[in-house]
Amino acid sequence: MRIGFSRLAQDGKARAGVIATPRGEVMTPAFMPVGTAGTVKGMLPGSVAATGAQIVLGNTYHLMLRPGAERVARLGGLHRFMNWQGPILTDSGGFQVMSLAGLRKLTEAGVTFRSHIDGSKHVLTPERSMEIQRLLGSDIVMCFDECPALPASDAQVAESMRLSMRWAARSKEAFGDRPGHALFGIMQGGVTPELREQSAEALKEIGFDGYAVGGLAVGEGQEAMFGVLDYAPGFLPEDRPRYLMGVGKPDDIVGAVKRGIDMMDCVLPSRSGRTGQAWTRAGQVNLKNARHADDPRPLDEECACPACRGYSRAYLHHVYRSGEMIAGMLLTWHNLHYYQELMAGMRAAIMAGRFGAWEAEFHAARAQGDIPPL
Amino acid sequence: MRIGFSRLAQDGKARAGVIATPRGEVMTPAFMPVGTAGTVKGMLPGSVAATGAQIVLGNTYHLMLRPGAERVARLGGLHRFMNWQGPILTDSGGFQVMSLAGLRKLTEAGVTFRSHIDGSKHVLTPERSMEIQRLLGSDIVMCFDECPALPASDAQVAESMRLSMRWAARSKEAFGDRPGHALFGIMQGGVTPELREQSAEALKEIGFDGYAVGGLAVGEGQEAMFGVLDYAPGFLPEDRPRYLMGVGKPDDIVGAVKRGIDMMDCVLPSRSGRTGQAWTRAGQVNLKNARHADDPRPLDEECACPACRGYSRAYLHHVYRSGEMIAGMLLTWHNLHYYQELMAGMRAAIMAGRFGAWEAEFHAARAQGDIPPL
Repeated sequence: MRIGFSRLAQDGKARAGVIATPRGEVMTPAFMPVGTAGTVKGMLPGSVAATGAQIVLGNTYHLMLRPGAERVARLGGLHRFMNWQGPILTDSGGFQVMSLAGLRKLTEAGVTFRSHIDGSKHVLTPERSMEIQRLLGSDIVMCFDECPALPASDAQVAESMRLSMRWAARSKEAFGDRPGHALFGIMQGGVTPELREQSAEALKEIGFDGYAVGGLAVGEGQEAMFGVLDYAPGFLPEDRPRYLMGVGKPDDIVGAVKRGIDMMDCVLPSRSGRTGQAWTRAGQVNLKNARHADDPRPLDEECACPACRGYSRAYLHHVYRSGEMIAGMLLTWHNLHYYQELMAGMRAAIMAGRFGAWEAEFHAARAQGDIPPL
Repeated sequence: MRIGFSRLAQDGKARAGVIATPRGEVMTPAFMPVGTAGTVKGMLPGSVAATGAQIVLGNTYHLMLRPGAERVARLGGLHRFMNWQGPILTDSGGFQVMSLAGLRKLTEAGVTFRSHIDGSKHVLTPERSMEIQRLLGSDIVMCFDECPALPASDAQVAESMRLSMRWAARSKEAFGDRPGHALFGIMQGGVTPELREQSAEALKEIGFDGYAVGGLAVGEGQEAMFGVLDYAPGFLPEDRPRYLMGVGKPDDIVGAVKRGIDMMDCVLPSRSGRTGQAWTRAGQVNLKNARHADDPRPLDEECACPACRGYSRAYLHHVYRSGEMIAGMLLTWHNLHYYQELMAGMRAAIMAGRFGAWEAEFHAARAQGDIPPL
């Protein structure tokens, strides 16, 4: 084990624990804000830490294209570059090559693609992905995998999963032995239990420091996602962190933790913040709406974030409508703060053996919210 | 005197002092960041204060159009609305109606114009400007004046100045008696000493808490501006603050303080920050430039702002090129920090009776800068 993971409590399938890295501890269940291109959009790193976040995610695909992994390495690594002292998890680039890059070609060796920024040609292989993540200085490195576009036939999903497992073995080989750094495998297999189990077995055979559930949050809907999460985490080792990639809305996150997930990431809180959307315990609030124009109340009376402590809904509405940067800055801060409070609430409930009651309160608060969901 | 002004030292014509308001003191010479629409763009109020700024400026024109002065008043005033506890100076709307609004009609009564936001029709008069600034809760209120578009004939400038003086009298009458709040007159008269003197005499006859030098920084160039500043401040009372509106670049500011100006405001440091431009003691740095892509040095080794303490030029270049909000956030912070350090340096030099030596050092540092001016 290259980083530590201690389980502190379990309530039903929900787990509370702590990941120990040389750059600091991460209490789980953990939500990781996304710092795609070396910044959590709209936030300074100190503000990200102030929300309670203990780890952020960086995107291999974006960083390899701009400013370039070798350049980041020359400048002292991603932590120093982006001024974030805590742990960083980087994805492998696999998913984003499929979803963002231009014209691409998939072979056994890897993926050839064109940059969405300037059309330049690039190659990603398991070996190159490991090299890039090493150059960035990532604390938690993700295997290079392939995520099939939906809809896909069972045969396509199976073929893709087997390719990802071969790439997982190559990723492990290329990663080598790096004390203080972890490598996570990524389970694939779509919504088919047999394929999920085969994938988990293949990954465990290779052996990883943690295991991600991949191939979800790609448009299948919450019901299908929870359907997979009802069984898939059970295929993974109990003593390793389980990471659900790219999830999600608050109720997705609560449902995932309930089903045994320890780590999540999503652009939603920051992206929502920049488009005038706030997440609160009473549900989603659309600050664009004219009904906020004269509302002297804070976004959430109980929230201690700077947006809620210092400003009215009327102000947030005004600055959003005026196109002011502070709108995205404050709403992103609020959303990330709310997400971290959500995680802290779940951790405390799991430790106290009252996750079920906490979950009921979570849903009740949303149902009683004065804010209708969008 | 509705607010206090104490002169602490004078060195040549350069003055150091302190303006005392119920919301806090403002050390002069003072630079006021511009918070046009209820926010200093790209900054949280706590960050603005952290740069050393003690007063910010709000724009009557923008705020009357959106969110509306009556609305701001209902929400508790501009300080509470924008979460800035220190003093606020508001302009009168006169200048911006001339430069920003659509189709407009000027009469003795005031100005009728169309909003640049939605084309709606509005009227500004001295009386309405005073009412708006009262509704906003401004600590330092500016007279409603007319600023002629350049080029203008002497006759046009004279006629405009006399109109502004009649409006100044109406502004004073409408302002009334508001303890703890100040009303500043605005000298006009273009680049003609006789007109400037006539304007100053008219203002002194009416009697104000402070006096602005208006009608400069409108494209006349630094030489012409300094030409006016060589004599115009001398027409104004010594025991009242003198405010040069809309200025400027660092060397404009130094030259203005040298000529007896106490207060200034400008969008330049914040606007430059959002367009990748930094102001440093070594001159102007264009972070867009590719030569910064691999530069591990901070923007300014000696600067204590978050941008210089936490990031390389390479990072600032990267985030600017990537269109990330943090670029504008960090560069605005740096620029405002640099402007406040500039003011603090001048204050200390005036207090020590070494403004001349300080000014020589200021120009020498720029001449020796590794950064060629743009």
